[in-house]
Amino acid sequence: MNYQLIKKTTLLLAVCLLAFSQAYAQDVPKPLPMKPGMTEFWEPEIDVVTPGEQTDNAFISAPSDAIVLFDGKNLSEWEHADGSDAKWTVADGAFTVNKGTGDIKTKKEFEDFQLHLEFRIPEDITGKSQARGNSGIFLQERYEVQVLDNYNNRTYANGQVGSIYKQSRPLKNPMRAPGSWNVYDIIYAAPRFKEDGSLFSRATVTVILNGVVVQNHTTILGNTMYIGLPDYEAHGPASIRLQDHGDPSEPISFRNIWIREM
Amino acid sequence: MNYQLIKKTTLLLAVCLLAFSQAYAQDVPKPLPMKPGMTEFWEPEIDVVTPGEQTDNAFISAPSDAIVLFDGKNLSEWEHADGSDAKWTVADGAFTVNKGTGDIKTKKEFEDFQLHLEFRIPEDITGKSQARGNSGIFLQERYEVQVLDNYNNRTYANGQVGSIYKQSRPLKNPMRAPGSWNVYDIIYAAPRFKEDGSLFSRATVTVILNGVVVQNHTTILGNTMYIGLPDYEAHGPASIRLQDHGDPSEPISFRNIWIREM
Amino acid sequence: MNYQLIKKTTLLLAVCLLAFSQAYAQDVPKPLPMKPGMTEFWEPEIDVVTPGEQTDNAFISAPSDAIVLFDGKNLSEWEHADGSDAKWTVADGAFTVNKGTGDIKTKKEFEDFQLHLEFRIPEDITGKSQARGNSGIFLQERYEVQVLDNYNNRTYANGQVGSIYKQSRPLKNPMRAPGSWNVYDIIYAAPRFKEDGSLFSRATVTVILNGVVVQNHTTILGNTMYIGLPDYEAHGPASIRLQDHGDPSEPISFRNIWIREM
Amino acid sequence: MNYQLIKKTTLLLAVCLLAFSQAYAQDVPKPLPMKPGMTEFWEPEIDVVTPGEQTDNAFISAPSDAIVLFDGKNLSEWEHADGSDAKWTVADGAFTVNKGTGDIKTKKEFEDFQLHLEFRIPEDITGKSQARGNSGIFLQERYEVQVLDNYNNRTYANGQVGSIYKQSRPLKNPMRAPGSWNVYDIIYAAPRFKEDGSLFSRATVTVILNGVVVQNHTTILGNTMYIGLPDYEAHGPASIRLQDHGDPSEPISFRNIWIREM
Repeated sequence: MNYQLIKKTTLLLAVCLLAFSQAYAQDVPKPLPMKPGMTEFWEPEIDVVTPGEQTDNAFISAPSDAIVLFDGKNLSEWEHADGSDAKWTVADGAFTVNKGTGDIKTKKEFEDFQLHLEFRIPEDITGKSQARGNSGIFLQERYEVQVLDNYNNRTYANGQVGSIYKQSRPLKNPMRAPGSWNVYDIIYAAPRFKEDGSLFSRATVTVILNGVVVQNHTTILGNTMYIGLPDYEAHGPASIRLQDHGDPSEPISFRNIWIREM
Repeated sequence: MNYQLIKKTTLLLAVCLLAFSQAYAQDVPKPLPMKPGMTEFWEPEIDVVTPGEQTDNAFISAPSDAIVLFDGKNLSEWEHADGSDAKWTVADGAFTVNKGTGDIKTKKEFEDFQLHLEFRIPEDITGKSQARGNSGIFLQERYEVQVLDNYNNRTYANGQVGSIYKQSRPLKNPMRAPGSWNVYDIIYAAPRFKEDGSLFSRATVTVILNGVVVQNHTTILGNTMYIGLPDYEAHGPASIRLQDHGDPSEPISFRNIWIREM
Repeated sequence: MNYQLIKKTTLLLAVCLLAFSQAYAQDVPKPLPMKPGMTEFWEPEIDVVTPGEQTDNAFISAPSDAIVLFDGKNLSEWEHADGSDAKWTVADGAFTVNKGTGDIKTKKEFEDFQLHLEFRIPEDITGKSQARGNSGIFLQERYEVQVLDNYNNRTYANGQVGSIYKQSRPLKNPMRAPGSWNVYDIIYAAPRFKEDGSLFSRATVTVILNGVVVQNHTTILGNTMYIGLPDYEAHGPASIRLQDHGDPSEPISFRNIWIREM
Repeated sequence: MNYQLIKKTTLLLAVCLLAFSQAYAQDVPKPLPMKPGMTEFWEPEIDVVTPGEQTDNAFISAPSDAIVLFDGKNLSEWEHADGSDAKWTVADGAFTVNKGTGDIKTKKEFEDFQLHLEFRIPEDITGKSQARGNSGIFLQERYEVQVLDNYNNRTYANGQVGSIYKQSRPLKNPMRAPGSWNVYDIIYAAPRFKEDGSLFSRATVTVILNGVVVQNHTTILGNTMYIGLPDYEAHGPASIRLQDHGDPSEPISFRNIWIREM
């Protein structure tokens, strides 16, 4: 038996085994596909809370042990989600989604942290439900704290501002009117995984929006999904990612972003 | 304006308001309906474990502080799920599902507990996947620990024996062969609700099947659902309910059931 | 046997039983008494963090769903810990400890909440370690979040500002200098007890001091004790109590106190 | 300045700095020393429960995925705590403490696991309180599940059989009489530490003694201490250690030990 014959026989065997294993695998049903609207719950409606007054230009600056992710001047701490340069625009001490240029993320990666971030919906915002000032803060690139204009704009409760997108509805809706700055303070503990990649402990998050607790040590159930059910995949430290949602809404701005590793 | 007129006017107004509120309510989308197969996950397959040997007639009896729910003699601690008499059959120190007569539940209600229960799939069981020895233990009438013959019978992982049905797949599959007794030891903490009915803390459960931990302080996400997503509704102490699944499988038997309030 | 004789005999028997039960009880050792210094841990020292800048008169006001516990005008929401009138002094939009008059507490009682409170150490504070600006916020009258001047004043780590007193040291020390206002934001979940008075779940608390997380979903182990070990006793909703520590320190002031039930 | 002079000067400087730093360190108070009796709580007494009957020679054997740590034949899975050979005696399918030879531990190290272990107090045991059949199972060499004869032998509740030693009293006392085998089933999750050595999550443990839950997902507060308060120090996977308590009690035996990594 010469070498070529062995090679051919081996190849044939491999093809047969593959075909067999696929046939076998096809024997196992896959979960039926879902639609977005299956995980959108409008009821009960979230109560509106008017947040406390705060002098607009008197926002708190970063504590001395924080990493300043945006100090109003440039995007030196950020890059495009694909690793290229970030293309969002910087002006007047804020940066703004540059529609269609894609998400941006921090160059540094984080595990457990306290994150401070402010965002502003443009005063002339239009649209409704999810198509009104939609963006998002993806903790560790996977777990979305929703950014959306829900000032007099109702959407599904588990997808409005302050929600862990499609996982946990906010306790209240303390959104400020378009044109005002909203303040997010987020305390996050990363999930932990075992050496074999299985889940040891879920991520948890506390979210304070404009001084009002909207998520209270919420357990995150896995990646926040537009379609289907959340699940975990093992990962290590990862970036903060901000979403370019790409819909026809007016551009959303961010300022005063800092993070403290915990 | 006389009384009759007031009454009629009020009624008319009420009807109008109701119509208006319904019209308004109809304005809010409802979640799209789901199908059972959307929450059935076959992969990855659960590893089989051969449980330890145990002399069949040497099962552990109840500790002195336990409430004996079945001592082999009668159904005095049980009733039909609708409150009428339980119609399952008692023989040879066990009771057996009487197909089509409906679920049975304990007359007593429980909150936090340790539950011991043994079950046997008949030796001549037929069928496959979910249609093979299907029953269930509903903790507090809501949260199902699956009973199914998964000895050489694959089904979706999150619906096989040892699973919290469609919520949490078992860590392992230590099922004994049909005709043998399987032993469940379940440590359960009930959910707690606030006075306004909102959830304070989720239920947790540890499940040991034939001496092998299959659920390790698992957080229960809400009612276990055949179709759709789990959610909580406020409740107090409730019964243990056993399922008459009603399919053409041979009848499943139970014995040696006791519970310790914790 | 007449009535007087029965009465005397009964009394004698009761006395004998009491003596016997005490003798019996004395047979069981009691834990040896502890001293305060046994639960005071100075090492490792807590890192100092300079908090962010905030315009002093631009503090955030109460959200619309908050109960305002002090709006700068009067002590109408407070009373002496013994239920009599609160005797602390109100001036310039703040109230101040009136040394020796005793603790004050809210008239309303609370379970789970978000609490905002600001405090100021007088600029001419003297003393050191615990004898420098000592007060405290007792959540549900039992669990003390420490108030102390730790600006350039070291004390045992588990007893400094931001600590759960003698239970959990703060993660950082973001204290402002005497004369400045410090801001506490506290998210608290009450312990839950079973019907028999045993503990179901421990209290948890997240504490943010001057914008810096100092307690991150910390589990409270029981009543905060000056001497000895913490333990739980069953209780329901209870007040927020502020401490008149009574040492020769200058008086501490409070302002802008509001609470949101959760 | 020659090399020898530099060397001497540097040495002198180093000594001075050390002396200075020690002097400085001495300036910080150390916690006052405690006595054992300060952490021994006899009240309330733990309720006795008579465990269920079990045929003595019908104990459950190891599941197929378990690591058998003792199969009745030899100490091949064990070594002396100092790494030398284990000197305990093997006879009649059990091994027995060889008083004065020291603790033994598993050669393998573990993180999260389910542990099964049986122990027997000799029938002619003497002594009382802690001096009666005292041994212990140290999970990860640090966290002691108490082994003690508490059949008609009272001791401090947080130090009796089923306790996490001096941390968590058992829920019940289901001890069998001397001469009988007692069965421990232990479900343990290791603590997790951050890269800087600080604690991320505490260890938890569920303990079932003779079929009765005695610890229900108990949070371990740190190393179990005879004197003083528990605290955590960062560590990785570690052995199961069994204690040679060294008191004049009769020797304790162990059998049927297996562990499943989780």
